[in-house]
Amino acid sequence: MAESWVNSAEALGSDLHLELAGAGGRRAALTRALRDAVRDGRLAPGTRLPPYRSLAADLGIARNTVADAYAELVAEGWLTARQGSGTRVAPRADPLAARRTDPPAAARPGGGRTTSGGRGNAARPVHNLLQGQPDAAAFPRTAWLASARRALTAAPGEAFGPGDPHGRPELRRALADYLARARGVRTDPDRIVICSGFAHALWLLSGTRALRHTAAVEAYGLDFHRSLLAAAGIRTVPLPLDEDGARTEELAIRRDLRGVRTVLLTPAHQFPTGGPLHPERRATAVGWARASGGLIVEDDYDGEFRYDRRPVGAVQGLDPDRVLYVGSVSKSLSPALRLGWMVLPDALVDEALAAKGEREAWVSALDQLTLADFLESGGYDRHVRRMRQRYRRRRDQLVAALAERAPHIRVSGIAAGLHAVLALPPGTERSAVRAAIAQGLALDGLADYRHPDATGPAHDGLVVGYAAPRDHAFAAALDALCRALPPGETSGGATRTP
Amino acid sequence: MAESWVNSAEALGSDLHLELAGAGGRRAALTRALRDAVRDGRLAPGTRLPPYRSLAADLGIARNTVADAYAELVAEGWLTARQGSGTRVAPRADPLAARRTDPPAAARPGGGRTTSGGRGNAARPVHNLLQGQPDAAAFPRTAWLASARRALTAAPGEAFGPGDPHGRPELRRALADYLARARGVRTDPDRIVICSGFAHALWLLSGTRALRHTAAVEAYGLDFHRSLLAAAGIRTVPLPLDEDGARTEELAIRRDLRGVRTVLLTPAHQFPTGGPLHPERRATAVGWARASGGLIVEDDYDGEFRYDRRPVGAVQGLDPDRVLYVGSVSKSLSPALRLGWMVLPDALVDEALAAKGEREAWVSALDQLTLADFLESGGYDRHVRRMRQRYRRRRDQLVAALAERAPHIRVSGIAAGLHAVLALPPGTERSAVRAAIAQGLALDGLADYRHPDATGPAHDGLVVGYAAPRDHAFAAALDALCRALPPGETSGGATRTP
Repeated sequence: MAESWVNSAEALGSDLHLELAGAGGRRAALTRALRDAVRDGRLAPGTRLPPYRSLAADLGIARNTVADAYAELVAEGWLTARQGSGTRVAPRADPLAARRTDPPAAARPGGGRTTSGGRGNAARPVHNLLQGQPDAAAFPRTAWLASARRALTAAPGEAFGPGDPHGRPELRRALADYLARARGVRTDPDRIVICSGFAHALWLLSGTRALRHTAAVEAYGLDFHRSLLAAAGIRTVPLPLDEDGARTEELAIRRDLRGVRTVLLTPAHQFPTGGPLHPERRATAVGWARASGGLIVEDDYDGEFRYDRRPVGAVQGLDPDRVLYVGSVSKSLSPALRLGWMVLPDALVDEALAAKGEREAWVSALDQLTLADFLESGGYDRHVRRMRQRYRRRRDQLVAALAERAPHIRVSGIAAGLHAVLALPPGTERSAVRAAIAQGLALDGLADYRHPDATGPAHDGLVVGYAAPRDHAFAAALDALCRALPPGETSGGATRTP
Repeated sequence: MAESWVNSAEALGSDLHLELAGAGGRRAALTRALRDAVRDGRLAPGTRLPPYRSLAADLGIARNTVADAYAELVAEGWLTARQGSGTRVAPRADPLAARRTDPPAAARPGGGRTTSGGRGNAARPVHNLLQGQPDAAAFPRTAWLASARRALTAAPGEAFGPGDPHGRPELRRALADYLARARGVRTDPDRIVICSGFAHALWLLSGTRALRHTAAVEAYGLDFHRSLLAAAGIRTVPLPLDEDGARTEELAIRRDLRGVRTVLLTPAHQFPTGGPLHPERRATAVGWARASGGLIVEDDYDGEFRYDRRPVGAVQGLDPDRVLYVGSVSKSLSPALRLGWMVLPDALVDEALAAKGEREAWVSALDQLTLADFLESGGYDRHVRRMRQRYRRRRDQLVAALAERAPHIRVSGIAAGLHAVLALPPGTERSAVRAAIAQGLALDGLADYRHPDATGPAHDGLVVGYAAPRDHAFAAALDALCRALPPGETSGGATRTP
């Protein structure tokens, strides 16, 4: 393992030393040198780069300089920084594959990692259109601090002692009210277990009988969740999707789904394709669970953000004994809080608590108390309303820009959430993604979300998050996006991207 | 598994229904009925009780009533609520064995779970002398809120976006300064990785080459940590202790320690026996690590609280490439925050980050920013100073009470920390623990901390935490403690506990 990068460091060494001795910032020089080495093949796809500390020592420069250069190249897609395997040269000619592994770096357009302009290198993302990121700058600091003040002042002394894995009762009571009111969830505070988000919930549930051996997942979804399940020894089987959402009727029919006892669904807003699960499909899923003794894990990641009609309620309301409902504040408020919740069937609460351990080991009790006040004081509702308006406006701008400049591109998944899917003609996704990178956009293609075992036709498309860019930068982002899209058949003049 | 409790529920059913139909609160009646059933053997040791939801349904009472009754009986030691095996009748005649699994319940003397007095049942703990719990009521609410306000106001927008597994740079900078100044730790912010506490650190490290296959641990320590390592597939081998701390010289000598490449130590204040690791032993440990390519994991759980001279610095300062330093705010500030840190050798940072995952999934960025401000504004130092005085006063009261009323009992581990060890004559620990329970005390015997494979003589003793009780209740707690201690050889009149 060590050798594989030592060699590459040595191979680069002399070049880099020359570069760094030259004019310009060291980070810029290092970034340029590494990019060139990848581009012209001196660093082959898959090659492991030296740990940034080693390279920094070799070159006699600061670690942060190397770290920043790597982060930049990850954001650009030249490198990947996958969990457990260090930093490597991106495996595909199309460097976008690496993007989703480093959202924080890409999440700062307008910050320290944007292009300085005029460098003649269009590959660095200027516009963050990655899905899954709310508008971080809109965090309601003042209202949150007011809740923190009230909550900490009112908290009993024991709240600052060792915590209960169940979570603070104040928060569980507030959530039971809120989820019933806003999401149609049927629960009492006892059946809510606080966690740090959906991934934490999956991890905890993989220690219970809710998740064993094999689980069905939607054919398009987050690779990160599939990996987490695989690491817990759980095989995932893809469930095909159509315009009505996951084809839940196949659960009872298909031979390769026979052993499945748990299905993970995103019913309010299929992730990432964007449609709600059809009411019949919901009923079918619940019917399957009842008949087979199965369970549904409902990932309600952005259920609050529905724009054109009333939010679709949670499937959990249909059968609280068969549906595990999971939500968090990561989209509605901020992923920085690490606060989520599971609403569990009675029979699973004790097991989930046992999986969590004898004490609360994960979630800040102070943040729990603050969120409880934020919910009860109406601050959460106000924030969600405000953000719903804001995101709807963004969504409308996106739709309008496409209608004007790329009317041949079908947009879907726009009734809800923080992202849309732009359908592309078959076979054009990779070139469109490449064009988007060239336009300075950070976004993903649909292929990144497809289950590796999925059968049936792949859908070409771009997943466009519209929540994260700052207001003043959004028009430019849309402009760049439209430039990156393949021209329509009827639009004369433009040549088709090969 | 299900049958084992269904039967017990049915067996109890009629009795309980009668009880509950009677006068008095339902919780009190249920608690009494269950306690009597355990006491008179209708519920045998080890019997699994029904999930509280099932029993609630059977009896037609609220779940919380059952949950509270169970919690009360766990706190009293009649029942155990071990992770993964539900609630059971305590296996030992001595009901204290169950105590440590439910510290939150026991942590509320003066709260809802204390005796109502005069019930003629002395077994319910009134005085919380469990180790490991700081004075929760002393949390510096106002100062913390002031830091939160400053930190959240000053935070850049990206702080509310997806987090970096490394932890907030503001906090890592503040910690690097603080740890150098207060604990003699040699580091830069790059080598600090934020985590939620020592258990989280162990869990993360067990995914790196810092912890593989076999680790040496001190012969006395937290069972919880040993279990966590076992669950990660790591065997622990006990390292004997004497008055100079862990016998680190045996690392290089003993045959059964040959394969060991990692040793876990509590050098500032051996947990729980209480002495600092002798300087020669520190040097020996570092020498072993250097010679063998081994690593030391330094658990600095309460290093700030040293009373009679300057704090003992961290072993990490001797060799930052061989010592992994782990600390948290759990003792110094509050375990409710879930905030800790690892200071790692350069070569392990990338692995630890990989183990943490591609995004910050665990620790609230808002709390991280607040702690950074709290450290930099001097609030943390002020709080530690204040608590040091408070805990020293407590320690002095304990020592004085023992000198007066039980001069034959040797107290050790009093130079630092939040607990002391009261040495008992060989063979008297279990009866002393039983006497303590009868006096309404929640505390542990040393036997609870002994490694199951430890060789050499066991030390009889009580581990007495003195930080948690409220001021007004501490004198009564000491009084009860002195009554529970075995009488000295020279003290006439008293009969020896059998």
